[in-house]
Amino acid sequence: MKKIVTFGQIMMRLSPPGFTRFVQAHQFDITYAGGEANVGIATAQWGVEAVHVTRFPDNDMGRAAIMYLRKYGLNTSEIHLGGDRLPVYYVENGANARASQVIYDRMNDSFCTLDEREFDWERILKGADWFHFTGITPALSKSAAHACLQAVQTARKLGVKVSADVNYRKGLWQWGKTPKEVMPELVEHCDLIVCGNSNADELFDIYPKAGDKNSWVSTMKQVMERFPNLKLALDTKRQSISASHNELKGKAFDGHTYFKTITHDLHHIVDRIGSGDAFIAGFLFGYDYFKRDLQRTLDFATASAALKHTVEGDFNLVSIEEIQRLATGDTSGKLSR
Amino acid sequence: MKKIVTFGQIMMRLSPPGFTRFVQAHQFDITYAGGEANVGIATAQWGVEAVHVTRFPDNDMGRAAIMYLRKYGLNTSEIHLGGDRLPVYYVENGANARASQVIYDRMNDSFCTLDEREFDWERILKGADWFHFTGITPALSKSAAHACLQAVQTARKLGVKVSADVNYRKGLWQWGKTPKEVMPELVEHCDLIVCGNSNADELFDIYPKAGDKNSWVSTMKQVMERFPNLKLALDTKRQSISASHNELKGKAFDGHTYFKTITHDLHHIVDRIGSGDAFIAGFLFGYDYFKRDLQRTLDFATASAALKHTVEGDFNLVSIEEIQRLATGDTSGKLSR
Amino acid sequence: MKKIVTFGQIMMRLSPPGFTRFVQAHQFDITYAGGEANVGIATAQWGVEAVHVTRFPDNDMGRAAIMYLRKYGLNTSEIHLGGDRLPVYYVENGANARASQVIYDRMNDSFCTLDEREFDWERILKGADWFHFTGITPALSKSAAHACLQAVQTARKLGVKVSADVNYRKGLWQWGKTPKEVMPELVEHCDLIVCGNSNADELFDIYPKAGDKNSWVSTMKQVMERFPNLKLALDTKRQSISASHNELKGKAFDGHTYFKTITHDLHHIVDRIGSGDAFIAGFLFGYDYFKRDLQRTLDFATASAALKHTVEGDFNLVSIEEIQRLATGDTSGKLSR
Amino acid sequence: MKKIVTFGQIMMRLSPPGFTRFVQAHQFDITYAGGEANVGIATAQWGVEAVHVTRFPDNDMGRAAIMYLRKYGLNTSEIHLGGDRLPVYYVENGANARASQVIYDRMNDSFCTLDEREFDWERILKGADWFHFTGITPALSKSAAHACLQAVQTARKLGVKVSADVNYRKGLWQWGKTPKEVMPELVEHCDLIVCGNSNADELFDIYPKAGDKNSWVSTMKQVMERFPNLKLALDTKRQSISASHNELKGKAFDGHTYFKTITHDLHHIVDRIGSGDAFIAGFLFGYDYFKRDLQRTLDFATASAALKHTVEGDFNLVSIEEIQRLATGDTSGKLSR
Amino acid sequence: MKKIVTFGQIMMRLSPPGFTRFVQAHQFDITYAGGEANVGIATAQWGVEAVHVTRFPDNDMGRAAIMYLRKYGLNTSEIHLGGDRLPVYYVENGANARASQVIYDRMNDSFCTLDEREFDWERILKGADWFHFTGITPALSKSAAHACLQAVQTARKLGVKVSADVNYRKGLWQWGKTPKEVMPELVEHCDLIVCGNSNADELFDIYPKAGDKNSWVSTMKQVMERFPNLKLALDTKRQSISASHNELKGKAFDGHTYFKTITHDLHHIVDRIGSGDAFIAGFLFGYDYFKRDLQRTLDFATASAALKHTVEGDFNLVSIEEIQRLATGDTSGKLSR
Amino acid sequence: MKKIVTFGQIMMRLSPPGFTRFVQAHQFDITYAGGEANVGIATAQWGVEAVHVTRFPDNDMGRAAIMYLRKYGLNTSEIHLGGDRLPVYYVENGANARASQVIYDRMNDSFCTLDEREFDWERILKGADWFHFTGITPALSKSAAHACLQAVQTARKLGVKVSADVNYRKGLWQWGKTPKEVMPELVEHCDLIVCGNSNADELFDIYPKAGDKNSWVSTMKQVMERFPNLKLALDTKRQSISASHNELKGKAFDGHTYFKTITHDLHHIVDRIGSGDAFIAGFLFGYDYFKRDLQRTLDFATASAALKHTVEGDFNLVSIEEIQRLATGDTSGKLSR
Repeated sequence: MKKIVTFGQIMMRLSPPGFTRFVQAHQFDITYAGGEANVGIATAQWGVEAVHVTRFPDNDMGRAAIMYLRKYGLNTSEIHLGGDRLPVYYVENGANARASQVIYDRMNDSFCTLDEREFDWERILKGADWFHFTGITPALSKSAAHACLQAVQTARKLGVKVSADVNYRKGLWQWGKTPKEVMPELVEHCDLIVCGNSNADELFDIYPKAGDKNSWVSTMKQVMERFPNLKLALDTKRQSISASHNELKGKAFDGHTYFKTITHDLHHIVDRIGSGDAFIAGFLFGYDYFKRDLQRTLDFATASAALKHTVEGDFNLVSIEEIQRLATGDTSGKLSR
Repeated sequence: MKKIVTFGQIMMRLSPPGFTRFVQAHQFDITYAGGEANVGIATAQWGVEAVHVTRFPDNDMGRAAIMYLRKYGLNTSEIHLGGDRLPVYYVENGANARASQVIYDRMNDSFCTLDEREFDWERILKGADWFHFTGITPALSKSAAHACLQAVQTARKLGVKVSADVNYRKGLWQWGKTPKEVMPELVEHCDLIVCGNSNADELFDIYPKAGDKNSWVSTMKQVMERFPNLKLALDTKRQSISASHNELKGKAFDGHTYFKTITHDLHHIVDRIGSGDAFIAGFLFGYDYFKRDLQRTLDFATASAALKHTVEGDFNLVSIEEIQRLATGDTSGKLSR
Repeated sequence: MKKIVTFGQIMMRLSPPGFTRFVQAHQFDITYAGGEANVGIATAQWGVEAVHVTRFPDNDMGRAAIMYLRKYGLNTSEIHLGGDRLPVYYVENGANARASQVIYDRMNDSFCTLDEREFDWERILKGADWFHFTGITPALSKSAAHACLQAVQTARKLGVKVSADVNYRKGLWQWGKTPKEVMPELVEHCDLIVCGNSNADELFDIYPKAGDKNSWVSTMKQVMERFPNLKLALDTKRQSISASHNELKGKAFDGHTYFKTITHDLHHIVDRIGSGDAFIAGFLFGYDYFKRDLQRTLDFATASAALKHTVEGDFNLVSIEEIQRLATGDTSGKLSR
Repeated sequence: MKKIVTFGQIMMRLSPPGFTRFVQAHQFDITYAGGEANVGIATAQWGVEAVHVTRFPDNDMGRAAIMYLRKYGLNTSEIHLGGDRLPVYYVENGANARASQVIYDRMNDSFCTLDEREFDWERILKGADWFHFTGITPALSKSAAHACLQAVQTARKLGVKVSADVNYRKGLWQWGKTPKEVMPELVEHCDLIVCGNSNADELFDIYPKAGDKNSWVSTMKQVMERFPNLKLALDTKRQSISASHNELKGKAFDGHTYFKTITHDLHHIVDRIGSGDAFIAGFLFGYDYFKRDLQRTLDFATASAALKHTVEGDFNLVSIEEIQRLATGDTSGKLSR
Repeated sequence: MKKIVTFGQIMMRLSPPGFTRFVQAHQFDITYAGGEANVGIATAQWGVEAVHVTRFPDNDMGRAAIMYLRKYGLNTSEIHLGGDRLPVYYVENGANARASQVIYDRMNDSFCTLDEREFDWERILKGADWFHFTGITPALSKSAAHACLQAVQTARKLGVKVSADVNYRKGLWQWGKTPKEVMPELVEHCDLIVCGNSNADELFDIYPKAGDKNSWVSTMKQVMERFPNLKLALDTKRQSISASHNELKGKAFDGHTYFKTITHDLHHIVDRIGSGDAFIAGFLFGYDYFKRDLQRTLDFATASAALKHTVEGDFNLVSIEEIQRLATGDTSGKLSR
Repeated sequence: MKKIVTFGQIMMRLSPPGFTRFVQAHQFDITYAGGEANVGIATAQWGVEAVHVTRFPDNDMGRAAIMYLRKYGLNTSEIHLGGDRLPVYYVENGANARASQVIYDRMNDSFCTLDEREFDWERILKGADWFHFTGITPALSKSAAHACLQAVQTARKLGVKVSADVNYRKGLWQWGKTPKEVMPELVEHCDLIVCGNSNADELFDIYPKAGDKNSWVSTMKQVMERFPNLKLALDTKRQSISASHNELKGKAFDGHTYFKTITHDLHHIVDRIGSGDAFIAGFLFGYDYFKRDLQRTLDFATASAALKHTVEGDFNLVSIEEIQRLATGDTSGKLSR
């Protein structure tokens, strides 16, 4: 993969240090995050040109956001300035039986109020291998949904493969349409989706067939029948023993074969947010890197997600070598001098 | 003064530590601020019951805000929970010729979207000596302006004195009416206002009369003629030599006599935001404390404002003793063991 | 439970950040702590009016302590100012096989030197559901012990239930009497105690009867016979695998039935100090909330104690919802968006 | 100015926070710095494409350096990876009569050990308006000096203007040649130099002529006679009242006219390091921006240097608007809302 | 000077960072301080063997104190372990008109409760040039006063010169005797004292003679007549313009001649605590170093005190070179590379 | 053991706080480290006089290093000042499957460039029980290797026992000789070595004999035959489950008997660097302390190493009591009040 284009909102992420609760906090650590940008940033670590399309306010908070993203290798040349505010989300880090807590303040920001005609998708997508978005983008506002549809259509026209994380967040979707009205039209143009059974139910009214042994494969088969452009479906299975201890494995289905990985034991967790995006980034990158060997690609993607749990912030700042060491079985974390 | 009631928006204030610029920041220090609450908090340090009326979101960010205010002595029992978001403002600390910078993200928050009928002003204002608001409250939204008017009318009815800082901020006032349509009706019920010549011009179309020696007194005379309930007008004169070095003096006019203070040399400044509120708080408190001796009251108010420049955050966390030491002429800052 | 009154010393707690040892420390994090206040603060999070009675020095260190407690919802109106010093305790956070270390500097402080007649217990206890104290209070000084006795007697007179954590700390008790001379008179007025077998031995010379299957129940039966006002005895059982990994379960006995909870696996521990107080707070609160359903009350109390291990500082800053989620079996710590 | 190319060593700058002395330090704040990169970064804030040429070790310390520079807008695509180490300099912040202290650990690093043939100057300099270097680059190593000469020669050949800060640091220059042997050959190709009287003496054996009223102009005239390509000479005059208080003014000479600015009063100073580079950056940028109006250019350059004293780190992170406000006479540092 | 012995209490000094007020503090910076130890530490920076005699509790807080002192070069081999507590003092840093604030918690500590016979003064003082104490030591407790007297008597017997800062702090002196009963017996053995007019009045009932032009010299003459061993009297004159801005000069009298220094302008002040001790240390060191040239010694002492205002904490961590630069007139604080 | 002498390079260790990656770091925590000094520091905690011989630059960075070491009890009187630079190593803390990462910048420093004749080994080693070095010292430079040989020879001559950790690091050894040429001559004089099978292979070409049941014992027997002065061989066996979870046990062989310890479960790890040195320190100290009871000595050494995993930085700042508690079986980490 040489170039990826991602589109979506990027929020400033404010977290009290360590295990401090919101009500105890005197300081916030500042990072930035967004499902799509997380994918772009991860691939940028591995040498990919990652162009992210979004919109920030035209003030020093917007400029600070751009600088932060640029540091981690994102191509920020397609970020527009305009609108009123930088969106924020607050993250409180859990431990053991106390869950991490997230509070969003993302509406009416510069991204939600973008003008759906302001992006020149033909120019932006030119030469890209993949375009990636998540189900959050069309949920945020009408203009964001429309811009996303244009992007997806342009991608298909230009032969750019399309990937989507069909992430359904009930609390969003306040602009007038339901996800069932919007998402199918977007997924129609996708080559790859990350989708669990509950998403398939909520977005497409598709359920596993009674009698099918593997319920996720059963569902994905039907999803692929409904959307013939779809060639790959992915998912992860997370077992949450506590906020400090999870187990994770990856799943993929290419319409014919079901692939899965070993179970990664994640203990103790530094920061699990963004691990889903690290998984997708790993898959999109590995697909090319491992010449469409789906098992190796899935192993790489899942190891990428596993390592994300050791990095603070939403971004998966790990190298190909670090992921490969884990993907090929070395979990030792031995000191590297 | 036994009890004061204040009404207005309270924002979370996020500042990079020290002299760090926004684009360099990795952390924000968290404090809270609001023109009216600043007045309440200052008087609470001096033993006054300070009730603040506002609205926060019903989540841990809203609860954290309440806890913070409660710590500094504010009576938070009249704070409502509801609406979508906690407002934020970002403060970058300047030095020398580099100005401090403030970026607001305060619209559509839980305060702006309050229901104008949700506060029981008769109960809240009962027993209060003063009700205080600023020109920012009616600027924020229609319902905030309406609630403010009710508060002011109820105060007058109950014999609670009304104080206003008729602070005109052009960028606000987006809800449909202009300040000239709204402010006079509010000021009509005031006993005391903080008002400079430019405010009088922008809000009331009142200018100093040609030939009057003291232009501010000239203007205030006319303002008091227009609003017969008004008994006191206040203002401060700030000379900004640099972001680190200011000079400040206080002014008062009671319709007859013009009072002024010595000039305080403020060097170097720790944090000047909130000094206007510290001035008002000092005046409202001193008015009673010094048995309406306006010169001593003004000296106290101005010393209160001067000391605010030495305290981090918007709140003037200084004692009566500290202010009196300065108000009566001791600027030495000698170590107190 | 609408109102609880607690009485005891509150210390400033100074801890090096993270796992820093005392000899490595350049900074201390400041929190506050006291066995009884910890109980009050926990219940204040759940909406209870928690009045704490104590004494601080009349200086800015004393005022800082009050502000801190007020932030977390404690009613501080019965805190007296006087005496010479704020007590301090130093906490070094252990890990794995290295134990946490606590160094006390609590003697001769403003609490120890209180005047036993300075508290108007009738007024303070009016309308309270519970009065709570620990065995540390009478250990600190003669006047503290006397004041505690008055409080207990007044509570009984007013029909306020009395709860005690009969915590025996050998190193204290330097004022002339032994715990065996003092504690029985206090426990006589108690409705509920937290007491293990070793406490029963050290304070009351009561041992399990040979042949009784459950030695703690055997002991508690005898304790209840000796103190007929006692209706409830509680205890926790902690298995310390390492400083980072504990197991915890709760026990209760009502004179007839023995209740116990599942074992909570606590790994990894953020801060275990105050978990005993979180247990009591949970029990006193749950007793009413669950309408004297002792099993649900005990489950709630133990889940409250378990969650305390995830919160920095002595105070159990967790919500009813968070506790209930764990008390009813969800240990997953899943991200709550 | 559309594009500038700079060449030189970039060091990691490690500073104890605040006014902590080296022997007291427990932490270092990490920034990066280099005389030439400082110029590039400053102009990048103003929209210029700033390409910096240097060499870092091929490890995560080198990558961290690149990320940091990229954040602040430097084009890092011409930075090579190789060699053994990242150079470091330690900065202790002075106050009042205590001087700031700098300790260098910059030798044998990846830059000093570069291969003089590894940079393709024709490609790098293409389209540039200016090439800028300082006297430190040729002082560091033979290969650095040779590469610098190639760059300068190529620039002249391509019609790229050349600027040099002929900074003489005695302690460097250990590779075999003296600055008098090396610098003249480099300055021969320059269009602009920053040079004081002592530099002219040390590097070119040129002194002011007895009887000339303005000794610096006298010297610069002779320097320009010796190096006919030179069209502009610049200098600043700094009066050091204390480490916290300096006065600064700018000087320029174009072979005919002597220009100077007002004296800026810098009090109190946040960080003076890099102000010389901020001066040059301001001049190179202003030269174009003000269409060769040398007085306005010099005013802008000097205001740029003055503002640098308010920004932490070597980089002058200020906007054109901020500089212009000061350059045109507003020193007030008034809060900008 | 080869060896100095000092005797006195050392407190842990806890300060909120920057200009944070006590009630705002979440963290304390930890340093250590004591009038006598400050003198020892300062001279240790200049190569003197500085032995400090004190007593700390036998726990990790006591050991942390020893380690801290040892770091800065104090010979800690004569520090005893015993007693109950480490003394603490809290320092809040003032600015401008807001005074710094100090709260002591120093009584009943391990030093106050020392056994007056536990120090082997003959062995400790052997080979010392000076023994130094302050008026605080005999004020703290009876046993401290007795031990101090033994030290002073032993010093005289061994020919070790004795220096005292006759610092009168009213709030101390609670052990039964007044300073007028205790101090003269101690000063009798002194060769040098730091003493102002108010001290002379409070401790010795000595006042300037009417008509004497220099009132301090007048007083000191009489003090020296009363205590014939006294050969030198010192004092500083501080003008406190604000907490951020002081002026300071030094004074000395040798029974015949009056010496004074230039006035140092101290602006802005980082930390003024300990500057008196830095003055004494400078004098005791300079006395030898400058071969009893009293003017150079006084210049050095005063420059030492002036530089102390730029160093955080009580200790004067500056070099002989830094002091000499200032003492000989260079106030520029120019960057030293 | 009364006195130990160690010889080797000491680096400043710079680590991003917590789990921050290098590329994310804004600050470094400063500690110091060196394999040999780590051994000295650990024993200094237990009352041993630990003299370390090394060389630092003659500037405030060198002085800061000395102060740091002196704080933790090292006798620094044999540290020389000279040379150009303080060596640095950067440590990034791993978690779970992400390995910790170390980047060295240690060459050409003041230690590497020492003059092999500058240390007076006879005087330094006088009265020492042990001289300890590691395989890193002779690897760094020719003069370091020569000085080490002199030290070892002098030790043997004076009857000082010699201990070596024959640590082979391929990346070092750039000065012209291979370890096989240098190490045997040094080991010849050793009484004790820490050596694993791979070291024996790489340094001495010694492999386990086929058929021998315990391969390490097999190898060590041959090593001891080759070096007849050798009386003790030690090793640890570490099982790295993840960066957060290791298992560790100790092994010893005295030529006749093989000793081993229980396996310590290390979870979660705070900082594992320096645990090998903590093991050696524990052994050298315990050898005397337990009167050559090798099993108890090994148990102590291994518990010392286990506890090191709970302490930040390279130094094992734990007490004899803490180690003994673990060495005798108490892993509970129970709060010690």
